[in-house]
Amino acid sequence: MKATKLFAATLLLGSALAPFAAAPAAAKEGMFTPAQLPDIADQLEEAGLELDPDDLTDLTGFPMGAVVSLGGCSASFVSPEGLVVTNHHCARGSVQYNSTAENNYLENGFLAETKGAELPAAPGSRIYVTTELTDVTDRVREGTLEMEPTERYQAIEQRRKDITAECESEPGFRCLVASFYGGAEYTLIKRLEVRDVRLVYAPADSIGKYGGDIDNWQWPRHTGDFSFYRAYVAPDGSAADYSDENVPYAPEHHLKVNAASAENGGLDDGDFVMVAGYPGSTNRYTLLAEVENTFGWTYPTFQGLLTSWIETIENAAPEGSDARVKYESRLAGLNNYEKNLRGQIDGARRVGLVERRREREAALAEWIAADETRADYAPAIEALTELSVESATADRTNFWYNNATRPALLSAAQRLYRLSKERELPDAEREPGYQERDMTFFRQGLQALDRRYDPAVDMAEWELFLTGYLAQPAEERVAVFDEALGLTDETTAEDLPTLLAPFYEDTGLGDGETRLALMEADAAAFEASDDPFVKLAVALYDYERGLEDESKEREGRALALRPAYMEAITAWQREEGRLPYPDANSTLRITFGNVMGGSPFDGMAYLPFTTLEGITQKDTGIEPFNSPQSQLDAIEAKEYAGYELESIGSVPVNFMSDLDVTGGNSGSATLNAQGELVGLLFDGTFESVNSDWDFDPRTTRSIHVDSRYMLWVMEKIDGAENLIEEMDVVR
Amino acid sequence: MKATKLFAATLLLGSALAPFAAAPAAAKEGMFTPAQLPDIADQLEEAGLELDPDDLTDLTGFPMGAVVSLGGCSASFVSPEGLVVTNHHCARGSVQYNSTAENNYLENGFLAETKGAELPAAPGSRIYVTTELTDVTDRVREGTLEMEPTERYQAIEQRRKDITAECESEPGFRCLVASFYGGAEYTLIKRLEVRDVRLVYAPADSIGKYGGDIDNWQWPRHTGDFSFYRAYVAPDGSAADYSDENVPYAPEHHLKVNAASAENGGLDDGDFVMVAGYPGSTNRYTLLAEVENTFGWTYPTFQGLLTSWIETIENAAPEGSDARVKYESRLAGLNNYEKNLRGQIDGARRVGLVERRREREAALAEWIAADETRADYAPAIEALTELSVESATADRTNFWYNNATRPALLSAAQRLYRLSKERELPDAEREPGYQERDMTFFRQGLQALDRRYDPAVDMAEWELFLTGYLAQPAEERVAVFDEALGLTDETTAEDLPTLLAPFYEDTGLGDGETRLALMEADAAAFEASDDPFVKLAVALYDYERGLEDESKEREGRALALRPAYMEAITAWQREEGRLPYPDANSTLRITFGNVMGGSPFDGMAYLPFTTLEGITQKDTGIEPFNSPQSQLDAIEAKEYAGYELESIGSVPVNFMSDLDVTGGNSGSATLNAQGELVGLLFDGTFESVNSDWDFDPRTTRSIHVDSRYMLWVMEKIDGAENLIEEMDVVR
Repeated sequence: MKATKLFAATLLLGSALAPFAAAPAAAKEGMFTPAQLPDIADQLEEAGLELDPDDLTDLTGFPMGAVVSLGGCSASFVSPEGLVVTNHHCARGSVQYNSTAENNYLENGFLAETKGAELPAAPGSRIYVTTELTDVTDRVREGTLEMEPTERYQAIEQRRKDITAECESEPGFRCLVASFYGGAEYTLIKRLEVRDVRLVYAPADSIGKYGGDIDNWQWPRHTGDFSFYRAYVAPDGSAADYSDENVPYAPEHHLKVNAASAENGGLDDGDFVMVAGYPGSTNRYTLLAEVENTFGWTYPTFQGLLTSWIETIENAAPEGSDARVKYESRLAGLNNYEKNLRGQIDGARRVGLVERRREREAALAEWIAADETRADYAPAIEALTELSVESATADRTNFWYNNATRPALLSAAQRLYRLSKERELPDAEREPGYQERDMTFFRQGLQALDRRYDPAVDMAEWELFLTGYLAQPAEERVAVFDEALGLTDETTAEDLPTLLAPFYEDTGLGDGETRLALMEADAAAFEASDDPFVKLAVALYDYERGLEDESKEREGRALALRPAYMEAITAWQREEGRLPYPDANSTLRITFGNVMGGSPFDGMAYLPFTTLEGITQKDTGIEPFNSPQSQLDAIEAKEYAGYELESIGSVPVNFMSDLDVTGGNSGSATLNAQGELVGLLFDGTFESVNSDWDFDPRTTRSIHVDSRYMLWVMEKIDGAENLIEEMDVVR
Repeated sequence: MKATKLFAATLLLGSALAPFAAAPAAAKEGMFTPAQLPDIADQLEEAGLELDPDDLTDLTGFPMGAVVSLGGCSASFVSPEGLVVTNHHCARGSVQYNSTAENNYLENGFLAETKGAELPAAPGSRIYVTTELTDVTDRVREGTLEMEPTERYQAIEQRRKDITAECESEPGFRCLVASFYGGAEYTLIKRLEVRDVRLVYAPADSIGKYGGDIDNWQWPRHTGDFSFYRAYVAPDGSAADYSDENVPYAPEHHLKVNAASAENGGLDDGDFVMVAGYPGSTNRYTLLAEVENTFGWTYPTFQGLLTSWIETIENAAPEGSDARVKYESRLAGLNNYEKNLRGQIDGARRVGLVERRREREAALAEWIAADETRADYAPAIEALTELSVESATADRTNFWYNNATRPALLSAAQRLYRLSKERELPDAEREPGYQERDMTFFRQGLQALDRRYDPAVDMAEWELFLTGYLAQPAEERVAVFDEALGLTDETTAEDLPTLLAPFYEDTGLGDGETRLALMEADAAAFEASDDPFVKLAVALYDYERGLEDESKEREGRALALRPAYMEAITAWQREEGRLPYPDANSTLRITFGNVMGGSPFDGMAYLPFTTLEGITQKDTGIEPFNSPQSQLDAIEAKEYAGYELESIGSVPVNFMSDLDVTGGNSGSATLNAQGELVGLLFDGTFESVNSDWDFDPRTTRSIHVDSRYMLWVMEKIDGAENLIEEMDVVR
């Protein structure tokens, strides 16, 4: 036993730096659309794919038919009865929603032993099954280049809304028109919207969230980040709201789960992996001007503000207080964001992002200058750069105003008043977010506030933001805001408590019923209201619409310029032998690569797999390193139950790969060469977060939970044999 | 170039886990005395030593004749003119001592271009050259087993003092009688005491202390932790105080410095290395009872106190204040200690120290029980265990009292009053530390206080300690202390400022001259003093002597019991095929092993070398990651100047090995198979700090600065060609 492990450890190390040994081939940059897959068929086969790449383009075939979106997370079907696997952190809201003091599923985990015991997922939970992609570029863009910027913006938005509405005329579907390559192309995406989503199984936080915020973005990692939902539909197969009569959805395809040892084809170091999911957003094509502004100003400024913001909440909502419970989730989000920004800033410095972008822009300019037929690109890029600077200036000017209007009830009042104004228009002409199709989520947002709002904490946050607002140069202050709030040149931070307290004392918006009732109020009712937050919202309305109009005008210009720039840069990249792919936009993408470790920085190496024993090594008994004792005992007794990977001499817990992913990919099935599920993507390393801007093959690594650990926990710790039997497990 | 580097990276990784692949052979536990080397000759040769192991036992021959102690650090001669190389952190006090606002050598570095420009090292700096070891066991121990414990303690102490005094009757030598194996053996160590020590060269903190406290105990590391002293003696060759007439000391032997590439025999991964130095103290033989007390109580309690203590100083001496300057060094020490304790506690948990010690003790007991001739060991070990518990109880009882008597001027008053009492005895009978031979250091200690004492900070510390003292159970309080300080059962922390302020207002001990003058005062003068700290010292005197007597009585018992235990455990170890070695005790030891990385925890690997490029990676421009621009430029330009190591494609900065070292080894020359200097030992990894208690070959790694980086900095950055020429550099 020991000899096997030792030998393997050396082997692992031998390959840990493989990306260096074969850099260009192994670096798998690219979030490809399904339609692009035939173009990279050769590379896929070379990397190890054993399926026909053409099959991957069929969204209703295998395996893509099994890949779904949860809206913000990715997931996949793993049984013929609609069982869906995703990350624990994607389903945790539903675990929390169902938890009570008596049945704390976060602490104890939840397992439905029968379908009847499954619990409704948190309100708003959805499973989206993409069924059709249609190119609608011509219809969206036709004739818009000749329009004035604001008109162009409005025409394109209106056409996107119209196409969406047509698509959604078929009940049970949710559609969207996604923009690719900066508005050069538009695709209508039609998705079945499963509205009855139920929680089937989630391990305890002490497995599913093991390592918590401390290990977030870190390797080595030992997180059991998996959970199971089930999709339910009406007996006739159509999407329906929750009902006892609903039946499990029968997907046309589901993934097999691979639990094999390496000798039976189980995943090992160097093996091909592929992820199909819904990456949220990347900035690989942004211009130098925007990169400079982001890394020179926006990120450092916001990172600084986040640090104060976190401190403010922690002070106003002390550990153990009721208020802290309401702000736990926001604190986690802010901490995550702050760490992410630090990683972005570090990463940009490390790879020399600004310099690299400058070089790319110079090379592109040279390519354009080399051929007269490309002459039109140059002024478009110049104008787009000017526009970036203009937008950046607007962002800086509005930075403190935008923060100073963050209070929860002010935002609610602003959205409600806006709704009353939008409702004066026909539904089809309303702003996205204010159409009838948006009302379910609108209502849920207003309801959710109750569990996330505490007046004292909210006021402490407002004081922080207003202190920043007051400290900026006088010319960047907003007169209408100053007047409505009673801020003068003499106002100092010390005056704020007296100024702000009445808002919280006199408002009725703290009451959920009141907020919901206002969804039906007309504009006049708001304008006559005495509620201080409503009055402030009404006072700011015209100013904010003005900002929005300016922003739309800029975006209208961008909608003509950016496609030209994208045409230039993608043509240049093709000539350079690279296959361009659009920036991530929450649509279905495929990325492929290999299992591998890496060398994150001088003198260190990441090994590609972590082991069960690593859990014991990390365990302190104190959250977030508080593994269940049953797990520690099973590890101590080496009860591997057939899930052992020979090369590491243990059950693999998490693994790394060089896949190109970002937020939104969370929960994606990681597939092997045969399209079987070998893990779930759930994170990237701290050194990778900058890859949203610039993919660095030396440092970009994604982190997955190994399917063998998932099955081992299900079998040895949580007794989820019913689910193991329901799935097709390849051993 | 690139191919070489890539290939090498894989090679490096392949060997990073070598200790696992060949655990027993590669794990080099053992801090051997020179006399033991013939016993491990085979192992040394097998590990790669090309010198005759017997030569190493000759303290005045090559290479041991070149190895010296600085008292607390190790060092070595590297030229025939007394040039001594050690760690930057060992010589930094001398750099600080010579720095002024105009000539800030800490910030700018210091280089004497000629011998005349060399600066006196800080007061008290010494270079000790060990010249002779003599076994004095019989003389020290004869007849002591029959004595009562206190008598035994006193007899042994008196004989050690007498032997020391005889040895020091030869001028210019400093002697000590060191105890080995818990008092089973005693060795007289005779050392030439070089008192004229001069600072020759120290790089700037931005190289010599690169990474600072953040990187302390960490890998990967990029610290240029080297500096140079020169030993001076009187023209006749005898040790002498600083004088313009003194001449450089001509050592009989000095080390060559190896700067070779790997193909010319330069150091590479896996190569033999050896360190000769003066490790301070280890606890490898402590009994279970003591381990349990240390890790169950002492370390966690003290680590908690250190955290509050650091916070107290930081609050009382804010960043940028004059007081902070005085406490920087203490803060660094406390932070280092706190981090060390955390590492010890973590490490003990990780390796299961308590359980391992329990198992060892059980195995030893079994071995004893297996043979009647070993019957006497059992009751000795049992009595020693009881004694450990008794000592631990005393330590716990006195913990807060001991802290509550820490104020700097109280300690000074206690030492001074003690001196006046000791001086009533003949010199030879006085307590160690109060003999005439100790007076130079005694005086320097009193003088140094001026630069390390601020009344407000001292009082804040005292309040912290007294708050802990007041919080303990009433029965653990010390009546005489309570009475002298005016503490009653009703006293709370809030009363402390009023109680303590008068001490600082009314004392005269804040004045250095006053303190020094008291070295000549008799006991009556102290007893008549009105100084509040002196009065407190006088009041506590008898109580403290009582504690000391109890402690000596316990130590007297241990002096009979521990040798029996050590005899048992070393006999058992020998039978198990291991060569026992004594715990470290600041005497010359040799440890050997190999250059290698490691796997500190699951999923990660340390690579054995760091590179110049790693400096650039880490650099932020902000201390402690503020490399000189000239260095960054030279790295950017890849000006390796012939110091490149092929396998890493760069100049190696720091490297790791599996040598068995501890505090006190700092500054030791790291020698290759030919006895050439290839680096300087300066630290261990965080995972290694627990090795003082239990050497874990999987995680114990020492950190060295590579001689090629040292020479590269001297040549490319600091222009220290004069020193490079003075040394024998092997290329």
